[in-house]
Amino acid sequence: MELLQRFLKGEKPAIARVITKIENGTDPKLLEDIFPHTGNAYYIGITGPPGAGKSSLVNAMVPKLLENNKKVGIIAVDPTSPFSGGALLGDRIRMNDLALNENVFIRSMATRGSLGGLASKTKDVALVLDAAGFDYVLIETVGVGQVELDIAQVCDTTVVTLVPESGDAIQAMKAGILEVADILVVNKGDRTGADRLIMEMKFAFELRVHNSDWHYPILKTTAIENIGIDELVSTIKSHKEYLEKSGKLETERKNKLVIRVNELIEEKIKTHLHEYVIDQKQLKKMIDKAYERKITPHYIIDEIAKKIF
Amino acid sequence: MELLQRFLKGEKPAIARVITKIENGTDPKLLEDIFPHTGNAYYIGITGPPGAGKSSLVNAMVPKLLENNKKVGIIAVDPTSPFSGGALLGDRIRMNDLALNENVFIRSMATRGSLGGLASKTKDVALVLDAAGFDYVLIETVGVGQVELDIAQVCDTTVVTLVPESGDAIQAMKAGILEVADILVVNKGDRTGADRLIMEMKFAFELRVHNSDWHYPILKTTAIENIGIDELVSTIKSHKEYLEKSGKLETERKNKLVIRVNELIEEKIKTHLHEYVIDQKQLKKMIDKAYERKITPHYIIDEIAKKIF
Repeated sequence: MELLQRFLKGEKPAIARVITKIENGTDPKLLEDIFPHTGNAYYIGITGPPGAGKSSLVNAMVPKLLENNKKVGIIAVDPTSPFSGGALLGDRIRMNDLALNENVFIRSMATRGSLGGLASKTKDVALVLDAAGFDYVLIETVGVGQVELDIAQVCDTTVVTLVPESGDAIQAMKAGILEVADILVVNKGDRTGADRLIMEMKFAFELRVHNSDWHYPILKTTAIENIGIDELVSTIKSHKEYLEKSGKLETERKNKLVIRVNELIEEKIKTHLHEYVIDQKQLKKMIDKAYERKITPHYIIDEIAKKIF
Repeated sequence: MELLQRFLKGEKPAIARVITKIENGTDPKLLEDIFPHTGNAYYIGITGPPGAGKSSLVNAMVPKLLENNKKVGIIAVDPTSPFSGGALLGDRIRMNDLALNENVFIRSMATRGSLGGLASKTKDVALVLDAAGFDYVLIETVGVGQVELDIAQVCDTTVVTLVPESGDAIQAMKAGILEVADILVVNKGDRTGADRLIMEMKFAFELRVHNSDWHYPILKTTAIENIGIDELVSTIKSHKEYLEKSGKLETERKNKLVIRVNELIEEKIKTHLHEYVIDQKQLKKMIDKAYERKITPHYIIDEIAKKIF
């Protein structure tokens, strides 16, 4: 297959076409053809609330990651990111410089109205970039919701970014996003309150340090001035080394595969259910009865379940 | 059953106990016993980004909704809400006044680390308050993510709240939350930028007005000073009337039942799948092979699917 060959050589137009096919689900076999070529990239997640400067961070990190002839693939699942075309002019110009680099590939994922399958699609696109030969796959997401938690779950290293003035630290904690963070970055570190936020976050991280060999570093950066970026990239590399040496990279990647297989089987069953099992006309009749409170939704569910099992 | 009788009389301790049982899933039949008593409450969703003053809005709205001897049940799915114990002292004192009113019942839903099943549980708790005889069920959620979209989907009227200085308007639009809004509120309307935000939002709403008889109002409030609250409550009541007179309340509630039944059957199948169908030992062996790229996840999924269908 010609497309696959060009794709495996790392040709950008071929990569873009493969991703589009995967996103649209037009070629179900494609992901299967690609899968044997995956497993070599290192997955880095960058997440945090809007305005935390995630894109500036990615912008500053990429040149460091490209050193020693490495290749970096970027997936932007952030509607405010310049990488997905949603930010200010200045940001977009910087991003364009990056996009022209032959060792960089940038792909933005549509977010509007597609929250449901977004995390799943993003995971598939990450596999595509992995197979295409990128050494690092960077996934930038915005927010502290379920999509971010789902995506963090495929990343080897997850970096959570906060800023001093955002009241989102508590939000992030409550939503469980700090629990998936391997590294915490307080960006815009020159602003008032940065050191206080770091203190607060140390407290939040303390419990985890006791249960792990990894020390959960909290770093201060000012991405837009390139301050703290060297340390961030070397900390990510330290985390990678830690995972490799401790054997955790293998066990965690296997766990991630288990979770992914379970997700995919659920998706498959869902589709099968709606296409073959549930008689929509009969369902409509039962819904009318339930609306009148003559039967309960649980009765309907039992009737449908009987047909399946 | 004594508990159910006390519950149906509207006794607060009985309501609290029923909710706890539903949340913990300890009495699967309970929701079935309750369901025939539902369908009388009007469901109002209040959502928006953190700091939009949703709780102040709820606080100001409730006394209006209580007029003519009505009863109001409040579900707080917002970790920053004083209703769920997450806000400043002043807010909490106001909330306590409300909680002491015999026609008001307040329940907060745990959010930490439970994002997955949160929307589903919230829908069940809303049914409980409905059956307990509350005329209005208010659901306060925070953010613009999937959980908010899911919960909005059970509400008859969804109010989306924004504030002038938040950059979240674009976020809200991109995440699709504006598409589920029946009424848009620009709170803290006395601040700079309120009128500009209203102008921007009018533009975003315009398309929908063309496709609907409902005019999608955009209101300005200053909840903390009780400004604009009368208009908000009467607009909610207008929306209710509009839905009733046009017959949309019935068709939309039936659609919502269809969606809910589909969700519940998916949940049931998921549980069944993990408990009975998937042999975890065999799965582990296959995952090891997939990790070594000898087989693909799709092969595993096909093997599992064969057993089910």
